[in-house]
Amino acid sequence: MQKHDLISDFSEVTPSAKIATMTHGWRAKCLQRLVRLDLPVPRTVALPAETVRAIAAGRPLDCDGVLACFGKRPLVSVRPSPQDPDWGGPSTVLNIGMNAERHAELVKTQGQTAADALYLRFVQRYAISVARLDPDMFDIAEPSAEALRNALRVYRDEMEEDFPENPAQQLAEVLRSVARAWEGTSARLLRQSKGAPADAPLGLVVQEMAQGFGQGISGSGTIQFIDPVTGLPQVTGRFLGQSQGSDIKARGADALYLTRDPRGPSLEDIAPEIFARLAQQGAACRAKLRDEMQIEFTIDDSKLAVIDAVRVPRSSRAGLRIAVDLARDEIITHQEAVLRVEPRALSELLHPQVDPRGPRDVIVRGIGASPGAATGRIVFTSAAAQASAARGEQCILVRRETAPEDIRGMHSAVGVLTERGGMTSHAAVIGRGLGLPCIVGATDLNFDTKELRIVTKSGRTLVAGDLITVDGTTGEVLAGSVEMLPPALDDAFRTLLSWADDARDIGIRANADTPSDAQTARDFNAQGIGLCRTEHMFFEEARLVAMREMIFADTASDRAAALARILPMQRNDFVQLFEIMQGLPVCIRLFDPPLHEFLPHSRDGLRELAEALDRPLSEVTRRAEALAEFNPMLGMRGVRLGIVLPEIYDMQAQAIFEAVVEVGRRGGSITPEIMIPLVSAKREVELVKNRIDAVAAKVRTAKGSDFDFKLGVMVETPRAALRAGDIAQHAAFLSFGTNDLTQMTYGLSRDDAGRFMNIYVQQGVYPEDPFHILDVDGVGELLLIGAERGRQARPGLTLSICGEHGGSPESIAFCRKAGFDYVSCSPYRVPLARLAAAHLALMDRFGHN
Amino acid sequence: MQKHDLISDFSEVTPSAKIATMTHGWRAKCLQRLVRLDLPVPRTVALPAETVRAIAAGRPLDCDGVLACFGKRPLVSVRPSPQDPDWGGPSTVLNIGMNAERHAELVKTQGQTAADALYLRFVQRYAISVARLDPDMFDIAEPSAEALRNALRVYRDEMEEDFPENPAQQLAEVLRSVARAWEGTSARLLRQSKGAPADAPLGLVVQEMAQGFGQGISGSGTIQFIDPVTGLPQVTGRFLGQSQGSDIKARGADALYLTRDPRGPSLEDIAPEIFARLAQQGAACRAKLRDEMQIEFTIDDSKLAVIDAVRVPRSSRAGLRIAVDLARDEIITHQEAVLRVEPRALSELLHPQVDPRGPRDVIVRGIGASPGAATGRIVFTSAAAQASAARGEQCILVRRETAPEDIRGMHSAVGVLTERGGMTSHAAVIGRGLGLPCIVGATDLNFDTKELRIVTKSGRTLVAGDLITVDGTTGEVLAGSVEMLPPALDDAFRTLLSWADDARDIGIRANADTPSDAQTARDFNAQGIGLCRTEHMFFEEARLVAMREMIFADTASDRAAALARILPMQRNDFVQLFEIMQGLPVCIRLFDPPLHEFLPHSRDGLRELAEALDRPLSEVTRRAEALAEFNPMLGMRGVRLGIVLPEIYDMQAQAIFEAVVEVGRRGGSITPEIMIPLVSAKREVELVKNRIDAVAAKVRTAKGSDFDFKLGVMVETPRAALRAGDIAQHAAFLSFGTNDLTQMTYGLSRDDAGRFMNIYVQQGVYPEDPFHILDVDGVGELLLIGAERGRQARPGLTLSICGEHGGSPESIAFCRKAGFDYVSCSPYRVPLARLAAAHLALMDRFGHN
Repeated sequence: MQKHDLISDFSEVTPSAKIATMTHGWRAKCLQRLVRLDLPVPRTVALPAETVRAIAAGRPLDCDGVLACFGKRPLVSVRPSPQDPDWGGPSTVLNIGMNAERHAELVKTQGQTAADALYLRFVQRYAISVARLDPDMFDIAEPSAEALRNALRVYRDEMEEDFPENPAQQLAEVLRSVARAWEGTSARLLRQSKGAPADAPLGLVVQEMAQGFGQGISGSGTIQFIDPVTGLPQVTGRFLGQSQGSDIKARGADALYLTRDPRGPSLEDIAPEIFARLAQQGAACRAKLRDEMQIEFTIDDSKLAVIDAVRVPRSSRAGLRIAVDLARDEIITHQEAVLRVEPRALSELLHPQVDPRGPRDVIVRGIGASPGAATGRIVFTSAAAQASAARGEQCILVRRETAPEDIRGMHSAVGVLTERGGMTSHAAVIGRGLGLPCIVGATDLNFDTKELRIVTKSGRTLVAGDLITVDGTTGEVLAGSVEMLPPALDDAFRTLLSWADDARDIGIRANADTPSDAQTARDFNAQGIGLCRTEHMFFEEARLVAMREMIFADTASDRAAALARILPMQRNDFVQLFEIMQGLPVCIRLFDPPLHEFLPHSRDGLRELAEALDRPLSEVTRRAEALAEFNPMLGMRGVRLGIVLPEIYDMQAQAIFEAVVEVGRRGGSITPEIMIPLVSAKREVELVKNRIDAVAAKVRTAKGSDFDFKLGVMVETPRAALRAGDIAQHAAFLSFGTNDLTQMTYGLSRDDAGRFMNIYVQQGVYPEDPFHILDVDGVGELLLIGAERGRQARPGLTLSICGEHGGSPESIAFCRKAGFDYVSCSPYRVPLARLAAAHLALMDRFGHN
Repeated sequence: MQKHDLISDFSEVTPSAKIATMTHGWRAKCLQRLVRLDLPVPRTVALPAETVRAIAAGRPLDCDGVLACFGKRPLVSVRPSPQDPDWGGPSTVLNIGMNAERHAELVKTQGQTAADALYLRFVQRYAISVARLDPDMFDIAEPSAEALRNALRVYRDEMEEDFPENPAQQLAEVLRSVARAWEGTSARLLRQSKGAPADAPLGLVVQEMAQGFGQGISGSGTIQFIDPVTGLPQVTGRFLGQSQGSDIKARGADALYLTRDPRGPSLEDIAPEIFARLAQQGAACRAKLRDEMQIEFTIDDSKLAVIDAVRVPRSSRAGLRIAVDLARDEIITHQEAVLRVEPRALSELLHPQVDPRGPRDVIVRGIGASPGAATGRIVFTSAAAQASAARGEQCILVRRETAPEDIRGMHSAVGVLTERGGMTSHAAVIGRGLGLPCIVGATDLNFDTKELRIVTKSGRTLVAGDLITVDGTTGEVLAGSVEMLPPALDDAFRTLLSWADDARDIGIRANADTPSDAQTARDFNAQGIGLCRTEHMFFEEARLVAMREMIFADTASDRAAALARILPMQRNDFVQLFEIMQGLPVCIRLFDPPLHEFLPHSRDGLRELAEALDRPLSEVTRRAEALAEFNPMLGMRGVRLGIVLPEIYDMQAQAIFEAVVEVGRRGGSITPEIMIPLVSAKREVELVKNRIDAVAAKVRTAKGSDFDFKLGVMVETPRAALRAGDIAQHAAFLSFGTNDLTQMTYGLSRDDAGRFMNIYVQQGVYPEDPFHILDVDGVGELLLIGAERGRQARPGLTLSICGEHGGSPESIAFCRKAGFDYVSCSPYRVPLARLAAAHLALMDRFGHN
């Protein structure tokens, strides 16, 4: 073989070498940075991906040339260097270069035991990974001269040749084996599962061994300077004498602590000077690599070598604190800190916890797989979970175990409980991803699938609809609802979001129907309420009776009389909301649901109603039946009720205006926004506007007090989007209700879509559930058409979206591009939305979009 | 008063006078045409509208100048001449110029009786219309010298002055009175009700009297040359000796027939020469005035005078025949004939009749107010009628009487029956307008509004849901359904439509689900079937059982097995349709409705089903409940079923293809069009296409026979319209289903809209029910977007609409402008659509659009 046929494209890692992540991988680049920091990194050679590919294809590397970089007779390791540390790669191979001659030398310098251990480790690894011999034959518990001889003999017997003595040949074989392993099917599938492209490149580094065996203080360890769960400063890690590589994993019990520790001896005790240097090097790494690093180090006879440094693996909470602390230390900018925290990671931090001081009626225990606690009614299927969510009811999805087809059900649930599975089960992984409290492996649950109920080992029975609380932090399933503590939203959290707000250029409001929602919105710094649904207010007992009287009234004045009884309660609703929101805008959607939702559905309920109304049961039944609808979603609701039975909106407007006056008298100030639902024609807005203006005039006169308000339209029908130019003539704002708009654009009832949505997404009919991710192509176009026509007709028109899409980063990106003024989302999504919006603004500014 | 203050803007009606309908009104213009035809029209002066306005405002006319046109001492009449004959106007005033002197002369020339009659008539009329005296005082049964003296005395007593003797003064007063009457409130309301603008102008004509009284053959009459009901040639009219003006109405019993008649003496008998001249003049009128005219004539001592000619009032049927006959006689062109028939008038001609040979069980009799017969189930409210129509059930709307708010109910009904009212009642007028069989004034019906039933005088009880037949031709209400005769579609009808087809430039197809529909479509020369809904085919007993087995099957192969039993029946459905359509295109929509429509809803039905399926009732009930949907319109139907349970479409495609092969073997040829319903995403089309292509390949192989087919998409969701560019990549045609598209664009269920649609239309929220008249602004825009994007992606794409809008002239105009290939409508609307489309093409060509 001619010298010029050998690949010679490799570089020694020096401060000035041309080494990039794209070509040489993250590890090579990281090592170069450490070198530049003057850390005691053993000499290293980086092989770019092109070289590795050529090796895999069978071309030989100039291994003599590589080894020459290290001086005379080095021992070296080979480590993978893919572009992203998460993409994995073949295991590290240590001690390449060991042979009989070198062994004999090491016996002299390091002693027999260390020499035997190093040589044996290499023979084992080489035999298994390179020669592909049966690992069982090399399974040796304790290194010894005997074990080494034995291993060399087994190798010779199996391979019918001696163990290779030539270091260059050893290196060549290791590199070839490692390069080919990267191209194997299982390695490819593994890295693809972590987001790598199928043809992801692999760089390799060849590094001089720091052995960790021998005289004096020798060994290997890792050190990091923060708690990976909380992100608070704390030195953690272990050191194991007479060890190298992954020995510490196998023999962790023998390892030393790093800092002084009552539980046992520490590196700080036995080598305070080395420990001090490590701490100093850690600080340098953090400052220069601009992140919290975990440092892998080896000590050879008290000589410290830094082998590697990787980003500390961290929880979401720790990630946030690290970013904030780095920015506070002026290592990174506020903007970088904002960009370092994934918006979706925030949801993990937001969930409430069971109050430890309250009573706990534990039904069953499992594994707390995703933190936080939630209370809801039991559902046994994903479809039921979706139906429940569609009705606005919180539910806990209880399954034997979950599978991919349950994802939409999990999205719809507030918590998940499974009989089977562990911390890495589907339910656990997805639960954490969604920030959804989750308990798995609750093996004391006994599913009676036929009867759709659960009988616990202790004999308690649970059926669908029962109220339970899952505490995903402790793994306890509690009966009923329990006292909760709000999520711990610490100083770092608030600081990061305030920096996000500095960068953000689109408003974030919250959907809030109740004072408690409003308080959450306020706590999360929402810039107002974007959608206050008023219908729930009519379901309280006292109001429901009046509502039913209103429904059965025969004349406008009887209807008005029934509604007059609701007026003071409704006014009080609004006073509360306005006071909590302290002058921030509150957008109130007028009454929306069909009236039959307020009637009893059982015969007994109807009989009671007939008694209450003092009318014949037959009449009550007949009129209730007459109100039933084939397609309630498309029926007599929203503004249609407002036109046909205008007394309802009259009452609501009066309640809003009187609340404004009342809050004003107490020193508050509010300009309420009144939103008309389900509009499909301009004239609907005109008619409602005329009546509301009249109510406003009446309240102004009666109260002798002036106030302003804005009237706008919820754009939920495709026609309203198309006719936005007309509609905007009477509307100060348009808010796109993407839930209903999606239903109508697709001709798809959310309540009924559960039955086939999984199949649709699996078969790629829809790329994603359009109720979960905004359909940019269809619904999105209607948003753009509506926005453009609305603004053209009325340049100052305020545009927004409300509904469940409001908080997702994708929707925020869409609305921001479309020039919307704000998005409104559920209160708990507000922090996520604030951060996502900041990301978008910053990425735009830095040209990353 | 100075002469130059007098208005002198009037013209004698000569062939060259400047007289136009716009300025002088239709009567002046018509008289000029008669003059030009050299007909013996008495000398006439026309007053333009400006002059009449000035007179009403109080300026005096140069009446001496007017009278001077007629030579010495004329008697004249004053008649109204508005722009349109339908706009009415003040009654004619005859014999102006009569006074004592003239009376004395006439006694000598015409005899005492005639002279007294003429003078008395004028005095009466003048006293009542001009002097505004009490008509009772002038109510004289028989003219006589005594009566005349009496009238003159009463006038003098009441007015405290003598009856005016000066003809110019008489004329001035009459003109002033007539001009002012036109501006009165009641006259204005009356003409506005007939479509006139509030400020419609009035011309007047002053015409020399042909008296109709006196020696020899004297009298007045009218003649026309066609039967106003059938349009067939037939001289009709009457002649009354010694009469003028409207005398014939009061003394019709004494009138002569015109042609020889066994019932009594005729003008032809007593004055054959005059009759011959009249006939000749009639023919001249028809040829020159280019229409069938009714001629008003007077005979003075055997001297014929033509007083006036108006278009013969006519039925729709007669109007059509007249137009065709005029064109056949080359008096007008084919195109003019086409334009003379209003498309909506055709529907009157299309209705079936009760077969007189069949048995008739008459429940009650009323007035046959709108011809044709129809069978349906009784509904008592418009809302019920609309709900019934939405379910596809024919209904008869039965009301005490109808009011404007019932119009939509009448649209939805196939017939109307009212207890009250006559030929001009609301129900009768609207019924005729809609071509809807209608019986009014069925006073033997006794409404029991509380119990919602009817008890007839003869003691029979009718409740909602009972099947009855209304025979709007005879006025009989029959029990149940009866044998019907198809509508008489005569030669004139077919000829006119063939001329329409010559002009038409957009295709017309029919929606046809059954062989009988298809036959009707074929009879009406539809150019194919634009929408064949296949679901009804699954409701037949034998198929329903298999369908239910399919629904309850647990595996794809069990489903396929159940469907295999339906296959031969379904194939036979298509064979029949293809054979009837003889090679014309047939567009078959794949299965669309939700599966729960095929399940029983009662507990008994479920029990029977459980027995039939040999499964526990609890399971059948549970699965039936699981199939129920919140919003079936937006649920698991259409292509969603096709994706989730692909075996259904597989079976249908196989049936279609096998039918094509079978028809081919019998010598027929057909390229079926297969249409996928409820599409919202391109991938849906792709998936269905893949399977249908596979079925086609399988059938080709199995049958050893090749065939073509087209696959297309029914655009019913707003998203499909927006994404038409994508979808067209897999679709050879797009057909817009405007029913569902309207529902989704408005977010409005047609089944549920009845409750408030009337209020909405009354309040102008929607200009019209969008399910009745296509919403051009909203739904129409989606049609345009879909059409444009579809054609852009696929230039040869066939575009159409199907659904109930398809047949309306407005929708055809819209689709034609948008470049659609065809519209598809219900079979009975096809003639109307063909004619409407021809009108549009012709109006475009003649620049009238």
